[in-house]
Amino acid sequence: MAPLLQATPDGDRYELTSPTAMPKAGGFLWNQKMMIQVTCRGYATSQYMQPEPAKYAYAPALEAKTFMQPEQNYYAHHPGRFVYIKDEETSEIFSAPYEPVRRKLEEGDEFVFSAGKSDISWTIKSLGIRVEMSFHIPTNDVAELWSIKVTNVSGRDRKLSIYPYFPLGYMSWMNQEAEYNEKVGGIVGTCKTPYQKAEDYPKTKYLKDKTYFLCEEHPVAWESRQWAFEREGSLSNPEAINEEQLSNSDSRYETPTAVVQYRVALKADEKREYRFLFGPAYDDQEILDMKSKYLGKEQFAKTAKEYQDYIARGSGALKIETPDKGLDNFVNNWLPRQVYYHGDVNRLTTDPQTRNYLQDNMGMSFIKPEVARAAIVKAVSQQEKTGAMPDGILLAEGAELKYINQIPHTDHCVWLPIALEIYLNETGDYALLDVEVPGMHGDTYTVFERFSRAMDWLLSARDRRGLSYIAQGDWCDPMNMVGPKGVGVSGWLTVATAYALNLWAEVCEAAGQESVAEKYKIGAEEVNNCANKHFWDGDWYARGITDDNVTFGIKEDKEGRIWLNPQAWSILGGAASQDKISKMLTQVDEQLSTPYGVVMFAPPFTAMREDVGRVTQKYPGQGENGSVYNHAGAFYVWALYGIAQSDRAFKFLRQMIPGPSEEDYLQRGQLPVYIPNYYRGGYKLYPRTAGRSSQLFNTGTVSWVYRSLVEGLCGLKGVKDGLSVKPQLPKEWDEIKVTRLFRGAIFEVSVKRGDGNDVKVVVDGNAAEGGVIKGIQAGKTYRVEVEVPRE
Amino acid sequence: MAPLLQATPDGDRYELTSPTAMPKAGGFLWNQKMMIQVTCRGYATSQYMQPEPAKYAYAPALEAKTFMQPEQNYYAHHPGRFVYIKDEETSEIFSAPYEPVRRKLEEGDEFVFSAGKSDISWTIKSLGIRVEMSFHIPTNDVAELWSIKVTNVSGRDRKLSIYPYFPLGYMSWMNQEAEYNEKVGGIVGTCKTPYQKAEDYPKTKYLKDKTYFLCEEHPVAWESRQWAFEREGSLSNPEAINEEQLSNSDSRYETPTAVVQYRVALKADEKREYRFLFGPAYDDQEILDMKSKYLGKEQFAKTAKEYQDYIARGSGALKIETPDKGLDNFVNNWLPRQVYYHGDVNRLTTDPQTRNYLQDNMGMSFIKPEVARAAIVKAVSQQEKTGAMPDGILLAEGAELKYINQIPHTDHCVWLPIALEIYLNETGDYALLDVEVPGMHGDTYTVFERFSRAMDWLLSARDRRGLSYIAQGDWCDPMNMVGPKGVGVSGWLTVATAYALNLWAEVCEAAGQESVAEKYKIGAEEVNNCANKHFWDGDWYARGITDDNVTFGIKEDKEGRIWLNPQAWSILGGAASQDKISKMLTQVDEQLSTPYGVVMFAPPFTAMREDVGRVTQKYPGQGENGSVYNHAGAFYVWALYGIAQSDRAFKFLRQMIPGPSEEDYLQRGQLPVYIPNYYRGGYKLYPRTAGRSSQLFNTGTVSWVYRSLVEGLCGLKGVKDGLSVKPQLPKEWDEIKVTRLFRGAIFEVSVKRGDGNDVKVVVDGNAAEGGVIKGIQAGKTYRVEVEVPRE
Repeated sequence: MAPLLQATPDGDRYELTSPTAMPKAGGFLWNQKMMIQVTCRGYATSQYMQPEPAKYAYAPALEAKTFMQPEQNYYAHHPGRFVYIKDEETSEIFSAPYEPVRRKLEEGDEFVFSAGKSDISWTIKSLGIRVEMSFHIPTNDVAELWSIKVTNVSGRDRKLSIYPYFPLGYMSWMNQEAEYNEKVGGIVGTCKTPYQKAEDYPKTKYLKDKTYFLCEEHPVAWESRQWAFEREGSLSNPEAINEEQLSNSDSRYETPTAVVQYRVALKADEKREYRFLFGPAYDDQEILDMKSKYLGKEQFAKTAKEYQDYIARGSGALKIETPDKGLDNFVNNWLPRQVYYHGDVNRLTTDPQTRNYLQDNMGMSFIKPEVARAAIVKAVSQQEKTGAMPDGILLAEGAELKYINQIPHTDHCVWLPIALEIYLNETGDYALLDVEVPGMHGDTYTVFERFSRAMDWLLSARDRRGLSYIAQGDWCDPMNMVGPKGVGVSGWLTVATAYALNLWAEVCEAAGQESVAEKYKIGAEEVNNCANKHFWDGDWYARGITDDNVTFGIKEDKEGRIWLNPQAWSILGGAASQDKISKMLTQVDEQLSTPYGVVMFAPPFTAMREDVGRVTQKYPGQGENGSVYNHAGAFYVWALYGIAQSDRAFKFLRQMIPGPSEEDYLQRGQLPVYIPNYYRGGYKLYPRTAGRSSQLFNTGTVSWVYRSLVEGLCGLKGVKDGLSVKPQLPKEWDEIKVTRLFRGAIFEVSVKRGDGNDVKVVVDGNAAEGGVIKGIQAGKTYRVEVEVPRE
Repeated sequence: MAPLLQATPDGDRYELTSPTAMPKAGGFLWNQKMMIQVTCRGYATSQYMQPEPAKYAYAPALEAKTFMQPEQNYYAHHPGRFVYIKDEETSEIFSAPYEPVRRKLEEGDEFVFSAGKSDISWTIKSLGIRVEMSFHIPTNDVAELWSIKVTNVSGRDRKLSIYPYFPLGYMSWMNQEAEYNEKVGGIVGTCKTPYQKAEDYPKTKYLKDKTYFLCEEHPVAWESRQWAFEREGSLSNPEAINEEQLSNSDSRYETPTAVVQYRVALKADEKREYRFLFGPAYDDQEILDMKSKYLGKEQFAKTAKEYQDYIARGSGALKIETPDKGLDNFVNNWLPRQVYYHGDVNRLTTDPQTRNYLQDNMGMSFIKPEVARAAIVKAVSQQEKTGAMPDGILLAEGAELKYINQIPHTDHCVWLPIALEIYLNETGDYALLDVEVPGMHGDTYTVFERFSRAMDWLLSARDRRGLSYIAQGDWCDPMNMVGPKGVGVSGWLTVATAYALNLWAEVCEAAGQESVAEKYKIGAEEVNNCANKHFWDGDWYARGITDDNVTFGIKEDKEGRIWLNPQAWSILGGAASQDKISKMLTQVDEQLSTPYGVVMFAPPFTAMREDVGRVTQKYPGQGENGSVYNHAGAFYVWALYGIAQSDRAFKFLRQMIPGPSEEDYLQRGQLPVYIPNYYRGGYKLYPRTAGRSSQLFNTGTVSWVYRSLVEGLCGLKGVKDGLSVKPQLPKEWDEIKVTRLFRGAIFEVSVKRGDGNDVKVVVDGNAAEGGVIKGIQAGKTYRVEVEVPRE
């Protein structure tokens, strides 16, 4: 029997062989204009930018437009991409990939959902017919290129009808219709984006309000009205399919759909292939342009190649070969892809939160450092006159700060030196510091000056006790009621401020600005002293002190007793002494560790705590309320590598990736093609759902995980004048092989256990002094032999 | 064979005998806190106020919260109220009323959907089992009281499982769960209403975030997780029902549902009855309170009686007996109910548009005049200091003007004297004029002064040509681009201004304020002269002149060539001479009349016209874009009665009510229990969908239709010192009988054709001079014999 889930030999696809075992599991594709997430059963959620997020396939209800939802709900009429197959002789039907008919797999049937890096495909065999569905997207346009192959594998002649079904949904309450358009050769749905205020009309006027489903081969019949397709049947057995031929319906302010019919006679082993183009457009001319550009065998091949190349440009700085094949595959194929996605498209928003923008781009330092550089410059160009960073970074003409970005958070400056450090590690490009950046508020400063101003702002935004104000939130968005009166402070932000100051001091030092460095070092020390005085609770650091002077995240609390972030960052920022660290690590192990990762805090809140805020109102173990929130876990992992807690670090890092056991996959319900923003926590409270994936691939986690792998696990970290080598293998490993791209050179690294007490680094036969490889020449390949101590 | 649709003998129910003929047809119930619209197939849309509109049964997707949508879409997972029945011996299933199983009716099966005035019920017979479902709501609380009776009519012993299924839907992305709660005795779903800004939290804190489904009898098992119910089956064949017993599932941040199971053995003709309570609550205590108040046989009977009494208090001022039984039933039972609904709950908003508020309350003058009086006072208390009326009237503490009410419209003052006229006709309560009304902007004036100020404002809001500015809209909301620059003018509003001024002048005269009356009469005449000079297009009046001086609604226009409102109101306001009127009537007959009523304008726009606005962007023949928009039709009907065009008036009035032919019902797809806001127009363009009901019962239409029936058709109109009698029968009628309630007295009126040329009125044997019955004594019953001319 085929295993439930496995990677292909070259590891760039994951294949799932059951549609029912992990019903929400799926994959996603994106380009700079769109993204699409599909489930193994055929449901799809897609959106694109014009410039704000928009849809071209809609739910049947009038959907609220919000951020991407975690743990999406799918239901019978959810948008998807399906093909019905009818045996014309027996009238039996099934649908590929699985929905909407949900025909049970019988002996000899097949189901394979295959999530590739640049395409997603399925192979389904049922009723003696094999259906291969696959799609990819272009690199620079919004469209889906679908291929549907139907093969008669029954060994006898067959007569079939084939019905691709791409529901359009409830397009608009203003105006919607659909019909088969002979001029463009497919079904075209037309709607009008509603507006109410006259001044909003120009924003809607040129939106791509048409959705097309173009057929390379002319179908024999079609339906463009949802009701005409189902009638008194159901999606699992539509009446229109029970008839010989679809009715060629139009839709006039009725829910539109796109169904076409092909009728074929196939001899044994005979195959037919169909190609379709699905996407949004402004008018018929644009549809025709898209058709000639993309719809056809050659165009498909060309577009697929281009898109593969585009994805390949994000293949990252690291290849590993370890005893853990699942990890290797994830690190070599999928993690850099997810990092690239974040840095490449900024989560498809026009006003990413500053914190997200900087972290998403910090990962790009390993992939396309020039993108990270530009992002740092763009971010500081929007610095406020006070030195504070705004809540969001505006990317598009006419963009504005929306939703959460209208609510004051105080942590945004912290992320500047963090993103900068990685960029400088990778590139050594200290010249960036001297770049003059004209600001959007009319001032002009160098990058160096802007960073110093941001650090000064962090130092200033503290209370009389020296603790950092939280306002309506810090990194934890929904912690919105600790400090709305302007009094409450954040334990995490205080120790994070010290971390930022120290990082910046190190950069100043490396840039020869010793006196500036000294100032920030002293600042950091002072901040840490304040943190230790007010937040240390005996065995761990508290999370904050409210407007009403209540300290929380402490022993006395029944819920939200211990939070991961203050511990991780007190290590990073230097607040925590060795003694404090060992107490904290024990407490994290005991209170926060679960089989699915380390939770963000515990126990989760089961009721609103009004002096903490919305975070306590979320479902226990879900979202920010005490789940395995991987972003926080990733900070912790990075902190652990910094204090050589290699085994602990690896344990928590490995838990972020589903598998390798089938039991683990099933519980999480996700393929290992990305790290989700969270897995459900609440392990003690709700063991049935603990570990379940959010299915949401937008997360600041991935830059930190990638960094932890490159600079922590593999220990191949850039320094000003070279590459420092200091791997930290988990105790169960004896050796690994690593290929690292760095400053244009290739490092083939082999790490083995040795008998010494120190790390020994030999480069092309010569010992590298202090474990640092210097004088690196771009274009060259270095062979590096590393010996690490046994324990 | 049973007819498709018929009224019960006493006419207070309509019964439909097929679930498939008119799938969207249904009924609605309301009280001051909630409303629920259910379709004959079991789908339901309900909302309630807390204080803004809220839900307790949700769609599976995250729904956008907007105004009530016309032509709602229903789909497999749409909210609804269903019961599955399983034959334990054969495993056959069906569901009542029809969805989700959609089992076809076989020989001997039954389906009756029965929309009553104060309850809605179904009788379904399938597989030898009769299911009777019915529900009503309380008068002063938000809840649904459901009774489900199951009778074995198969003539042999049967073993059944009975599964009421009340899906809860996707309650919240913040926090949602459900489980069977033994303490309250039912399934309770719990969610948290999301908020983002801290200042919005207090608004969400005490919301009724729980949904309960309480069972009078303890079930043997249940599911509270949607997925646990369906699994790999579908709603038409849920897996959980294929098993012996439901799994007692809980839901933890998963889509919740409410399904319970009863297992029974029924002898031939044996019956079981179950009662359930469904609704929202804040906490368990509230659920327990609701349970003891409402869940039980006696409580059901008591609540039903109270709600019947409540509805009966809206039975109106008119009963008719005519040759048209469908009309009689509609006028005697349903139309006053719909008028009452509007005046009673103001469409369940906290900031009704001023125009809607005044018209909805103007109908209340026939039902509860004290409500109309209070509404007039409330409206003028919110008059602006300039004399203008605001775009919306704030009804609840903390309410604010939202959506369309943030967009400036210029017609709101017009509706004041219109609402007042009807109130004074019905009551003769001229004392109202002297009431001092402190305004929300700090000024205090009498009602009389406030009305004069509003009329002065109308006179002032005109351009140099004497035409009324339209700003971003008049009565036609989406006509938002005619005058945004402050230059464009409205043809309708100009003639409507004259109507308002004349009405007010008449009131002034009746109140003994002759000189004030004179001023407004002169004003009206001047306004009418300007209208005739600039808007008369040879055969009809134009609709307006844009900011860029383009006159539209004229012969040269290919789309939107002729609009109904300027014609109707030029008759009402006196602009149109006899000669002009006869030209206009002919044009309306030729260009605007369709088999489903008179359209608002023709031809409908097929593309955006940017100097007219959003109205031209709606779907052709739908909404305000050239549909049979009944509100406009009702103005026209009233205008026609005013010029004794009795036959034309009756024709258009009658078309607003579905039926009597089966063909007409099927095309409209609606029961005659209310007048919808529109029927689709576009009769020439889209004959397939023309006539289809919007299924939306919120409409300003009904006050005007009721008035046309009372004061026009029956000709029983209040004047200052009595009741004027002047019926206008359509030519095909020879006689009618009318009971009219008026100023506390009852008038039993019999109208017959006579040989004279004038109307003759005899009251209790004595001729009434001038056709006016004077000296009316409350409590008395008058017998009135009326003779009307043959032609």
